Amino acid sequence: MSLTNATPLEVAKAAQVGSRRLAVLSTDERNAALTAIHKALADAKDEVLAANKQDLEDANKAAAGGTLSQSLVKRLDLGKPGKYEDMLQGILDVRDLEDPINKTTARTLLDDNLVLSRVTCPIGVLLIIFEARPEVIANISALAIKSGNAAILKGGRESSHSFAAIASIISRALSTTSVPSDCLQLVQTRDVIADLLKLDSYIDLCIPRGGNELVRYVKTTASIPVLGHADGICSTYLCADYPAEKAVKIIVDAKVSYPAGCNALEQLLVAEDALTTTLPPIAEALLAKGVSLRCDAPSLSALKSSLPPHSAALLQPATDADYTTEFLDLVLAVKSIPSLDAAIAHINTHSSHHTDAILTLDASRAQTFLSGVDSSSVYWNTSTRMADGQRYGFGTEVGISTNKIHSRGPVGLEGLTIYKWVLVGDAQVSAEYGAGGKRWRHEVLVDEGVARNEEEREVLRKFRAGKAN
Amino acid sequence: MSLTNATPLEVAKAAQVGSRRLAVLSTDERNAALTAIHKALADAKDEVLAANKQDLEDANKAAAGGTLSQSLVKRLDLGKPGKYEDMLQGILDVRDLEDPINKTTARTLLDDNLVLSRVTCPIGVLLIIFEARPEVIANISALAIKSGNAAILKGGRESSHSFAAIASIISRALSTTSVPSDCLQLVQTRDVIADLLKLDSYIDLCIPRGGNELVRYVKTTASIPVLGHADGICSTYLCADYPAEKAVKIIVDAKVSYPAGCNALEQLLVAEDALTTTLPPIAEALLAKGVSLRCDAPSLSALKSSLPPHSAALLQPATDADYTTEFLDLVLAVKSIPSLDAAIAHINTHSSHHTDAILTLDASRAQTFLSGVDSSSVYWNTSTRMADGQRYGFGTEVGISTNKIHSRGPVGLEGLTIYKWVLVGDAQVSAEYGAGGKRWRHEVLVDEGVARNEEEREVLRKFRAGKAN
Repeated sequence: MSLTNATPLEVAKAAQVGSRRLAVLSTDERNAALTAIHKALADAKDEVLAANKQDLEDANKAAAGGTLSQSLVKRLDLGKPGKYEDMLQGILDVRDLEDPINKTTARTLLDDNLVLSRVTCPIGVLLIIFEARPEVIANISALAIKSGNAAILKGGRESSHSFAAIASIISRALSTTSVPSDCLQLVQTRDVIADLLKLDSYIDLCIPRGGNELVRYVKTTASIPVLGHADGICSTYLCADYPAEKAVKIIVDAKVSYPAGCNALEQLLVAEDALTTTLPPIAEALLAKGVSLRCDAPSLSALKSSLPPHSAALLQPATDADYTTEFLDLVLAVKSIPSLDAAIAHINTHSSHHTDAILTLDASRAQTFLSGVDSSSVYWNTSTRMADGQRYGFGTEVGISTNKIHSRGPVGLEGLTIYKWVLVGDAQVSAEYGAGGKRWRHEVLVDEGVARNEEEREVLRKFRAGKAN
Repeated sequence: MSLTNATPLEVAKAAQVGSRRLAVLSTDERNAALTAIHKALADAKDEVLAANKQDLEDANKAAAGGTLSQSLVKRLDLGKPGKYEDMLQGILDVRDLEDPINKTTARTLLDDNLVLSRVTCPIGVLLIIFEARPEVIANISALAIKSGNAAILKGGRESSHSFAAIASIISRALSTTSVPSDCLQLVQTRDVIADLLKLDSYIDLCIPRGGNELVRYVKTTASIPVLGHADGICSTYLCADYPAEKAVKIIVDAKVSYPAGCNALEQLLVAEDALTTTLPPIAEALLAKGVSLRCDAPSLSALKSSLPPHSAALLQPATDADYTTEFLDLVLAVKSIPSLDAAIAHINTHSSHHTDAILTLDASRAQTFLSGVDSSSVYWNTSTRMADGQRYGFGTEVGISTNKIHSRGPVGLEGLTIYKWVLVGDAQVSAEYGAGGKRWRHEVLVDEGVARNEEEREVLRKFRAGKAN
């Protein structure tokens, strides 16, 4: 990794050149670079924490002056017990994941000795813009190298000392490996984001990691494709048949376990016949946790008649804006919904296509919901907070995408790859095929380890049953 | 399909509503719509050809006035023998392809009774802008319905009568099916493209089908993601070990079989040791077909000394611009290249990342080329003209993408889908997992018909060997 004050164009050109060398390195070469980075950061913990301390002092001053929030200051602190070790472990976790590139994901025999393969490969150059958390730089560097992508990193001002320290250590570590140092560049020049976002000849994808404002700015400014999401307005539709105890557990987790998360619940949609049965215990549990409930007229009236007066007094009437707001706080909009179709329509219109759930015991209703809701993740009987790359088994994630092309939902290594079509022939040419000429075979080639018919599946079943006995 | 003069916003909103109904139709319902469209267009051939005749008359007048090219006029003619039947057959071909949506492409057991699936689904609303060829509208309508996407179509002025006739027939046909008619809308209002391209809240993807100028305009104007390519600058790198006879066959096909195609060869890169051996017979064959060769100094001098004087006299010196130009004509740039690495570097810098080939008998050189060249299709020992959805076995294509996210290369039905993550649980919640809590299982669930280890592969091999005897 280099720390650079070069112009955006110089940075982007160097990254593109580096990306082409990185793309052809072997799995072992890329993994060895991650091992080297891990070791270097482990050895230099004191150096990094000293730099982080400077950031914390600056941040505490800013917080005292009221220009920075205390929660942001907390997120800057790399010295919290276990945090540095988690960052280190994250690098090894990514290293030990399956290599996402050079995988053949489809093969077709077009004709004798003419085989078409679809092979995964890196996207090229990523531009990653992130806010305060200093450990993110190690995380993203690991993901980029593992997936064979060069990355241009631009971090938030609040962590600048930490970023610079981590970047120099990564830079020294990479110099002992096959990964060209221009593959990871930390841009320190100020006010370059707008220029970088226009360099679509050199940069293939931008991933903004930060608040809505940053993401919106990037989306409207970039001529490069942008992967990510601005809002996370997640909904859960509660049906009357779902047991209250489980519903309470799910809704409390979805709203309370981390209200600032993009996967936190913002809207509870309640079937009319659940308003006086399942909703009241949910509302009580949420109120007990300090959640403000903003209710539409039917849910407000149902709760007022069902809850004890001291709880009912805490309820608030909702406005229209509450159904298009990402609260990121202990606030929940509640709405009465007349039918499953109305729930689907409300979500498709009001949610941010991030993660939406249904709670019901009825499989047919659930299926209608899961296929009808146009969101990146759709859940049945669990909490919207499950939307996370680590929870999905991706090791880690670069973010959550509400895009409808390329990657959707939590984006891990696979989401940082694309494919190329590789065709190998023996001098066959296009004009030989078609009207009056040769016919295409178009035979889908299947791995020999895949059963080709029911008879072969039965052979596998019998073999397994024999082993099990 | 409706023919509409509504505002862009009304069109886009109606398409989004329609797309949500289309997305949940069954395979049979979508296929039945294609059967109905096929029958209606077959029955109404005379009506369509009458409208097409009007377009042809207008076009011939324009061609006589010099405002339209004769080649464009030819492409308008739906009455050419077999053309209408090909259009009809194309609809049935798409209908009979495997359904690309509702396919589970990955499954992971996160924990007991908590299963994560990745399920393919339509993208939503496509905006397809196309130029003259009238049969494209039937083709694209079939692809859109099969993949569960609504489509807003805006066709070139030259085919307006044909488009309107085909659209009314499709509209009548759809009214007898489950596909809402707003799922296919032919926009007849003028000057609406710029407005449509800004409606990213309603339209998910734009696919421009037409010349460079249209594609560039769309790419710079749209706030919607754009799938496609502006240029098709394809190269072939010729190594000295490749037999001249096969090289001649491949290069002639790549340059001559359809010079106006985006997959036609524009640059021949020649290894220095092939300049006086394999290049001369290739050059002779190309000159005999009327191809102009624009050669750099070394290739020019090698050919001048190897070719008979009447051929040598036809050679032209190349300018730098010839190596960044899409000729779309019987013109080929020729360049001498000192090494494999130089060939890869030249292609990565000068080609349009569409389709590039190497001709060699050396597998190791070929592998280096195939992995080092950053293009959507990379070929070994065959013609760049192979880059085509029909040839790849996709049935048909909506275009060829040089994008590096989402779909790359020829884009068929699969390229018109995205996925959603479906998570089904039994009231597990996020806060139960992690430090001190439950552990994720993250067990990749494999189809029971896939061998899980070498022992099981051997069982399948033995069974097949037994059947073969």
